[in-house]
Amino acid sequence: MAKIGVYPGSFDPITQGHLDIIKRASKFCDKLIVAVLKNSRKSPIFTEQERVELIRRSVTGIDNLEIESFDGLLADYVRKKDAQIIIRGLRAMSDFEYEFQMALTNKKLNPEAETVFLTTDINYMYLSSSIVRDVAKNGGDISEFVPAEIKETVENKLRNI
Amino acid sequence: MAKIGVYPGSFDPITQGHLDIIKRASKFCDKLIVAVLKNSRKSPIFTEQERVELIRRSVTGIDNLEIESFDGLLADYVRKKDAQIIIRGLRAMSDFEYEFQMALTNKKLNPEAETVFLTTDINYMYLSSSIVRDVAKNGGDISEFVPAEIKETVENKLRNI
Amino acid sequence: MAKIGVYPGSFDPITQGHLDIIKRASKFCDKLIVAVLKNSRKSPIFTEQERVELIRRSVTGIDNLEIESFDGLLADYVRKKDAQIIIRGLRAMSDFEYEFQMALTNKKLNPEAETVFLTTDINYMYLSSSIVRDVAKNGGDISEFVPAEIKETVENKLRNI
Amino acid sequence: MAKIGVYPGSFDPITQGHLDIIKRASKFCDKLIVAVLKNSRKSPIFTEQERVELIRRSVTGIDNLEIESFDGLLADYVRKKDAQIIIRGLRAMSDFEYEFQMALTNKKLNPEAETVFLTTDINYMYLSSSIVRDVAKNGGDISEFVPAEIKETVENKLRNI
Amino acid sequence: MAKIGVYPGSFDPITQGHLDIIKRASKFCDKLIVAVLKNSRKSPIFTEQERVELIRRSVTGIDNLEIESFDGLLADYVRKKDAQIIIRGLRAMSDFEYEFQMALTNKKLNPEAETVFLTTDINYMYLSSSIVRDVAKNGGDISEFVPAEIKETVENKLRNI
Amino acid sequence: MAKIGVYPGSFDPITQGHLDIIKRASKFCDKLIVAVLKNSRKSPIFTEQERVELIRRSVTGIDNLEIESFDGLLADYVRKKDAQIIIRGLRAMSDFEYEFQMALTNKKLNPEAETVFLTTDINYMYLSSSIVRDVAKNGGDISEFVPAEIKETVENKLRNI
Repeated sequence: MAKIGVYPGSFDPITQGHLDIIKRASKFCDKLIVAVLKNSRKSPIFTEQERVELIRRSVTGIDNLEIESFDGLLADYVRKKDAQIIIRGLRAMSDFEYEFQMALTNKKLNPEAETVFLTTDINYMYLSSSIVRDVAKNGGDISEFVPAEIKETVENKLRNI
Repeated sequence: MAKIGVYPGSFDPITQGHLDIIKRASKFCDKLIVAVLKNSRKSPIFTEQERVELIRRSVTGIDNLEIESFDGLLADYVRKKDAQIIIRGLRAMSDFEYEFQMALTNKKLNPEAETVFLTTDINYMYLSSSIVRDVAKNGGDISEFVPAEIKETVENKLRNI
Repeated sequence: MAKIGVYPGSFDPITQGHLDIIKRASKFCDKLIVAVLKNSRKSPIFTEQERVELIRRSVTGIDNLEIESFDGLLADYVRKKDAQIIIRGLRAMSDFEYEFQMALTNKKLNPEAETVFLTTDINYMYLSSSIVRDVAKNGGDISEFVPAEIKETVENKLRNI
Repeated sequence: MAKIGVYPGSFDPITQGHLDIIKRASKFCDKLIVAVLKNSRKSPIFTEQERVELIRRSVTGIDNLEIESFDGLLADYVRKKDAQIIIRGLRAMSDFEYEFQMALTNKKLNPEAETVFLTTDINYMYLSSSIVRDVAKNGGDISEFVPAEIKETVENKLRNI
Repeated sequence: MAKIGVYPGSFDPITQGHLDIIKRASKFCDKLIVAVLKNSRKSPIFTEQERVELIRRSVTGIDNLEIESFDGLLADYVRKKDAQIIIRGLRAMSDFEYEFQMALTNKKLNPEAETVFLTTDINYMYLSSSIVRDVAKNGGDISEFVPAEIKETVENKLRNI
Repeated sequence: MAKIGVYPGSFDPITQGHLDIIKRASKFCDKLIVAVLKNSRKSPIFTEQERVELIRRSVTGIDNLEIESFDGLLADYVRKKDAQIIIRGLRAMSDFEYEFQMALTNKKLNPEAETVFLTTDINYMYLSSSIVRDVAKNGGDISEFVPAEIKETVENKLRNI
């Protein structure tokens, strides 16, 4: 049976760290769904459509990929997509506890799906979407932080907030 | 001298994890006061009265219990109630640092009171009031997360926000 | 292409926590190799043969499983077995840093293989082989800690050290 | 060449813990600039001018000190001031991850500047500006938490919010 | 019913941090048993008798105290002493995970006993028996680290190893 | 007054991570002393002379450097060398707690000296001397882990243990 993975997140915007996880997870899933959380608690800066579009422009050349947005419970979404694997990237320690709590809650809500964690690439260990937003807003150079294809779009949006 | 314990929190709403701590702490305190923080920084979803009432319906059968709400400094409240022990439950690591900081601050403000920590029951280690709210809001099943007596009330409130 | 996973460890002895990881990982790998580290730094109590045999008796009913022992670098072993995935279970925070360090080192040594982490089942979160050994040595009951099939063998060995 | 250090922060308000870091860092920098972040994400309670003034009244007797406010990227500010060292105080673990992430980001943005961390004095390990604000707002005694010179000013402001 | 607490440890040797926990726990237990672990994994420097004796000389003036040594499982020892409470001190984060694991294991082995944690006094947060041993062995001054009553004995023993 | 820094460690052997710290610390100290701990608790594989020599061959081109070995208390050694600054590198979280404890102890023993922490370069975040030893012993490639000047020497020693 084909193994379907779901990689959920806010992607506000996608970073080099996210892109690295997408590339690596796409190798051991038969299909990988990048699932953009519509209305996260974090009040995203980029709209749902913008976040999906920024991902799309960043992932050229990966075949077994779908990009979607969703809302509601992740556990329900994963069940609806017949997925068996939830993918999450981990950066050093700060993510860990929250991720653990989410994995255990999702296990309760959907025992069929397994959350698997990948270590974030060491070069992007320090990186988060909020750092990208902070640096861009203040006129800093984000070319090491986001895929080249979207750098200009991200900068234009953030410098005009 | 009778030992009086205070178990402070937002209880927005009470979870199975809170209930487990209440049961265990009530065994080694002569009197245990569950103290609902009126206006926490977290802007509670349930009103003060609702939160007190949800606790009351969950703790039937425990004799040495009082349920109250309070505001102001915990250290002052504890002094006013002639309590010697502040009870806190700990879940894995994420709570730890914040709890430690609170315990040390309260020690400075009220050296007579001792904060003691219990480990949260392993089955509720992943559980928090905010997870209950998230799952209920999105139509998920919360019967493993809150006491049976309050499940329906919590669901009704949260699905209609 | 078939996805081959390797689950390395000391397994000194296998615990319910290990068994849970084996069951879950066997579902998303086409083949799972449980790889017993011959000479770990920890000076195992059970011999290599005993550790392999205790695993074999615990995993009845899982088809896509091989049990082997190995020494040398994990990264080399994984390459030799044509495996793409290294499986590791995580318990709360204590394992995390060491596991991260290992994952990043193995990535350097074998960039083809991906380490994926599963959260340990919440009921075995507190459990480690060293706790099993401590409890058994002191005559405590280990029936909640190891698979029923090996309980007696483990107790006999450890009470006579 | 003279070594210039920058100690950035919100200082909302300055605490005994901040003051301790200022004293210690001023000993191994030729010049130390205390840099008040104008508009932090945290929506400060004290205005930029008030925060600068509260620092000024607390640091009497330290010669090689400048107090300034800034906005924009810290990395740019540090470059503009010809500084080589960014000073940060660390309290136990909670600060650590965020600080690490900031240090690595600033290294990317300004490779010439080095972030160095000092351990917060053990007596102020539990202390933060937000604790000072909470205690003062609720009428508690903050004389152990802030320099004597500013205690009254801080209390007056916070009790009337 | 009288509440009996057990405070187990290696006490190799007792430090000011241990003494602080003993004083505070003795206030909310009717009887407190300081329980010296005979043969810990750590190969103690001081003999069982020496460790008991060093505690005895340090705790003058606390009435409701017993000092004993024990071996075997703590859970069994606590049951034998009809104790309901296991006392443990916590220093910042390093102790936390191990302590949590022990508390959950002891809960499995003796569900009647409750482990409660106290925060170590902030002045002794950095302190451990192994630091005392290291400093004393190298001729450093340990008068801030151990009770005055035992300083000389500890120094004499450790300088002659 | 010239600022003298001490960078203490086992250096068993020196890694790229250590070398990076040496380079960065040498820029903000007038003189930097790399201080090799003669007899650490860890029973070093390389002799004191070898460890000093491996450092010497790795640091060519840094002028303000001295390499020495020492034993006894670091706090005493730092005093003897008239140093004001103790340098330590931090890798993610695992080092942090131990380093904090050491910094606070050294502060007690020598209040004149200040411990300052640098973040390890992100590319060497995963790296430790023990990983170098493990990889080399098992015939793995250590050229990314140690300075090129000492690669062969380290491999020869470790493959023949």
